Order: sequence, then structure tokens, then C-alpha cells
Amino acid sequence: MTKEISNPEALMNYRPAIKVLDATIRDGGLVNNFYFTDEFVSDLYRTNIAAGVDYMEFGYKASKAMFDPDKFGKWKFCDDDDIRAIVGDNDTALKISVMADVGRCDYKTDIINKADSPIDLVRVATYINTMPAAIDMIEDAARKGYETTCNIMAISNAQEGDIDVALDMLGRSSVNAFYIVDSYGSLYPEQIKRISDKYLNFAAKYGKQVGMHAHNNQQLAFANTIEATSNGVNLLDATMACMGRGAGNCAMELLLGFLKNPKYKLYPVLQFIEKHMNKLKEEGVLWGYDIPYMLTGQLNQHPREAIAFSEAHRKDYSEFYKHILDQNS
Amino acid sequence: MTKEISNPEALMNYRPAIKVLDATIRDGGLVNNFYFTDEFVSDLYRTNIAAGVDYMEFGYKASKAMFDPDKFGKWKFCDDDDIRAIVGDNDTALKISVMADVGRCDYKTDIINKADSPIDLVRVATYINTMPAAIDMIEDAARKGYETTCNIMAISNAQEGDIDVALDMLGRSSVNAFYIVDSYGSLYPEQIKRISDKYLNFAAKYGKQVGMHAHNNQQLAFANTIEATSNGVNLLDATMACMGRGAGNCAMELLLGFLKNPKYKLYPVLQFIEKHMNKLKEEGVLWGYDIPYMLTGQLNQHPREAIAFSEAHRKDYSEFYKHILDQNS
Repeated sequence: MTKEISNPEALMNYRPAIKVLDATIRDGGLVNNFYFTDEFVSDLYRTNIAAGVDYMEFGYKASKAMFDPDKFGKWKFCDDDDIRAIVGDNDTALKISVMADVGRCDYKTDIINKADSPIDLVRVATYINTMPAAIDMIEDAARKGYETTCNIMAISNAQEGDIDVALDMLGRSSVNAFYIVDSYGSLYPEQIKRISDKYLNFAAKYGKQVGMHAHNNQQLAFANTIEATSNGVNLLDATMACMGRGAGNCAMELLLGFLKNPKYKLYPVLQFIEKHMNKLKEEGVLWGYDIPYMLTGQLNQHPREAIAFSEAHRKDYSEFYKHILDQNS
Repeated sequence: MTKEISNPEALMNYRPAIKVLDATIRDGGLVNNFYFTDEFVSDLYRTNIAAGVDYMEFGYKASKAMFDPDKFGKWKFCDDDDIRAIVGDNDTALKISVMADVGRCDYKTDIINKADSPIDLVRVATYINTMPAAIDMIEDAARKGYETTCNIMAISNAQEGDIDVALDMLGRSSVNAFYIVDSYGSLYPEQIKRISDKYLNFAAKYGKQVGMHAHNNQQLAFANTIEATSNGVNLLDATMACMGRGAGNCAMELLLGFLKNPKYKLYPVLQFIEKHMNKLKEEGVLWGYDIPYMLTGQLNQHPREAIAFSEAHRKDYSEFYKHILDQNS
């Protein structure tokens, strides 16, 4: 696969196996507590269909025993009926996904049989120390008829040997794909190349796919996504106008402008962005590249301190830098 | 050199030959007509010294016969006396550069002998169809005692065969370095790899260095800069908070956070940014990644239409997209 890097055809042609997943509601919901209007979600659904996007993630399947439904919008819970109210029978080429977090999802009851659900894909998010629980969730979803992926978070702080063990466990499971997740936006393209080589080797051994979920702390979300896909990664996450936690994600508009498959259309994405995304920003929803997120990315830290700094409208970046350096020592 | 990509030491260690050039005043001056306060320029000079930056570019040596000094700040002209008012005898490790455009500079009179000037480096900017004039400027500056580079602009629209001829002409000149210039912010890291291979081959043949000047239309200015340097490019342009024409340049704060040479310090850069850069934005100076610049980058066009769209505070991106597609047809 790495031969494609030095093969000019790779930039001119396209690989039909590449699939794009719109994570705007799910990762974007982390910055507005999932309070999207129905118009926003309906328009996004129609936009993704028109743009040729392959999957749309509606949100999380979070436990209502653990999270108060009065304190979050409905897409933190993704009741099947709420999805149906948007998509009907979803008689389209766009597939529907939800994310389920290890330890924060009542999957045995809340995820019903695929035959009775509008959902196509369940993405299980886990830290590397909870792989057995993740695999239990994956097997439950697979038995019920869903496609599944496993998104191992915060790998930039994990030992490579542990990642090997996790990928081998996943390889022997029913999961369809492993996702590379750069939770802290700390990884550089050279590291993405090494990590994707590793994931792709396990994927080839076990007949799985590999995905990429990037964060934009160092303005590398798009660069890391195209580095991964040049290397053979086929499942690519993106969000409208980068919306997502902290510095946000790989921008859908950048990704669709890069991919050469003629089924992808940029125009409807631009229409959606001009109608909805600036409005969210004007309403005070906060995301996107900024110095504090850059600093936590450079230092390979969770963005929580940067989010608090930004929400306080502070601009004393040099003090913040000293503060997070102190935390590391 | 490409072996470094697969060599983990390349990410942990550093290459002493790498030099950073701060182009804030020169490329940033394109968005405020070079009207920087003396305090800004003085603080930037002190910041670059404290941060270990290798070169600071003060602006252009533009012809006063062609450009009215009443309509631009003084850094469009970079009189030696104005530079001296900031740097005195510049008894520091920071070198001073200016840019001189082919056809827009009275270099025979305005660039005096190096022995009498605070300037160390003259960077000659040219399009590929004016190489003989560029080489005349380079030889003039070299005779006067300056370091020189040649920055060939808009190469994404040039024929590769013409670039070969230009690099061979430059190789046989007195120039010290050739710069890769992604004027339209249209190039992807895979293309930067191919182009830097080409530049580095000519550089090795003739004993020259190679530089990188990136634009951020596709959020790839930093990614392309680190791709180039991983490949062996040693002269790296950056600006504070990305300030520069249109989508701006590679951010100094991203670049210094990446480079591992302990002489580079991020803290003074953050102090400068928090004091000066947000203030410029609040005053209405316009630069940085935005959808219109992304679109001209994707379509490999000059950003002038995107700049006009942004300055008109328009947000109808989809109409703009149709407009610039029409222009291509």
C-alpha cells in the first residue's frame, strides 16, 4: 500500500473502498451538549445524502441511568424513534451509525436487533485498558446484526506493545474495523504513517478495515487523514466546518475537496455550512483551532484544560503554557 | 534523505542545518499595507531573538517610483535607516532579510553594499517566466556581499519541465538557496514530497540549500512545511499566528513546537501573540483559514477572488464556489 505514496496515480485516481463518515452531531455534540435543532439534523441528513457521504453518525447511545436526559439534547441517547423521525425508513445509500462508550452505555437493552432499528453501524469507543468490555459490546452488536468498529482512544499515551495486544484481540473478534483515534491531536503525519502501518498489518492478517479519526489541535487533522488514506486506511471521519471537541476534527469540506471519487459533491456541503455553521458560532458554540488546544496537542495532553481556558475567554497563552508544563512535571 | 521518514530518530532528534525565517512583517504586510507600529516591529525583533529564530524578514525593497510611500507603511520599502532604527547594529545571532520582487524593485540603487547595511539576506521573488531578471538581481546582491535566495512563485501552475530549467539556471548562479513556494496553498504533502525531491536533487548537484514557503488555504501550511523538512529541506518560513495573505502561512507557534532543536523557545512567541496578534484581528485586519481561501486552494487559483469575497463580509460560499468554477471553464 505504501507504494501509492510515490505513485502519482494515487493523487489523480481514487480508491472505491474509501468511505466517509460524518461525525458532526456526535463529536460536535460534545461542544453544545447535543442541543441541535431538528432542522439542523434533517438538513445535515439530506446534505450527507446529496454529498455522497457514506455514513452519518447521529450521536451516542448513552445510558439514561448515568446521564440525565433533561441535561442533554436527544442525540446523546439516539433513541431509535428519534432517528426514525429524521430518516424514516432511510431508503437511501447513506448508512446510519451511533457511538457507544464502554462503561457508559446500557447496550444490552438500548441497542435492539438491527432488523428493528434504523441504525446500521455501532462504533464502540474504548480506552486500551477496557478491551474485554469493548469486545463484549462488539459481539453483542454483531450478534444483533450490526456492522461494528472499535475506536481505541488516546493511543498517543499508550504503549505500543499494548496496542499490539489490543489489535490482536480485536482481530479475533467479530469487529469489522479498527479506528486510529488521535484523541489529543498530538500526532504528526510521520507517526500516523507508522501507526497506520501497524493497524493495517493487523487488519490484513484478520480481514478487517482501518479507520482514521483525527483532531485539529495542531492543524493536522486533514493532513493526518490524507496521510492515513494514502497509506491504505479506508474509513475517514470528518465533520462540517471541523465541528468537534476542542480544536475540532477533520473538515468535511477539505476532505471532499481532496477525494477524487466523483460520487462526492462539495456544493451541498457548502450550502449546509453557510446556512448552519456560522450561526452556531455566532450563538457562542466554541470549537476550532486555537493556541490553547495547540499547546495541549504539542504536549500530548487531554484538551480539558484548554477547553476551560477558552470558555473563560482568557488570552494569556504564555501563562497557560506555564500552567500545563507545571502539570506535566 | 527520505530514509529519515521511516527513521524514528528523525522525530526525536534534530538537524542543526534547519533554519527558521520569520516572515510576519513581509507576508503579513500584504494584509495591512505594511502599517505596523514601531512597537510591534521592535517587540517582534526581540521575540525572534529570544525564540532562537534564525532570520527575520522586515518587508520588501519596493520601488518608490512604482509605489507611493504615502499609501503604504515603511516596511514595503525597508529603507536601511528604518531597519537600523529597530535593530541598531544588530549585534545578535538573528539575521535580517528583505524580499525583492522582480520588476518591482530598484535594486541597483536601493540595495547598497552589505558592508554598509544591516541586511544579511536578499530573497528574490520571481515568476518562472522572469528567471533571467531574477538571476540579474541575485548576482547584483551577491556581488554586494549578501546571502541570496530565489523564491519561484506559483509553481503549482508551472510545467515541471520549466521548473527543471529554472532550477538548473539557478544552480549555476550565485544564489545560496531555492525556495519552494506554494503561492495558492493548493499543494498536498504527497506533492511537496515530489517537488522537494526535485529541488533537493538540483541543490545537491550545485551545492545549494532548499527552503519552503507554505500557505494555509487547505490547513496544510504546517503539514507541508514538516513534510518538506522531513525530506531534507532546511529553510523554513513561518509567521506569528499564521499572519499572511489570504489564509496565511505556516504558524511560527506550530513550527517551534515541532522542531526539537533546544535553541528554539515557544514561550516568547506566545507572549508576543497574546500582546499583539489578537489586537490586529480586533482592529479588522483579515487573514487565516476560511472557506473561500480553501476553495481557491482546492482549485489551484490565485486567492484574489477569495480575498475580495472575504473583505465584502460575504458568507454565501456555495455561490462563490459556482463563481470560481465558472471562471475556470
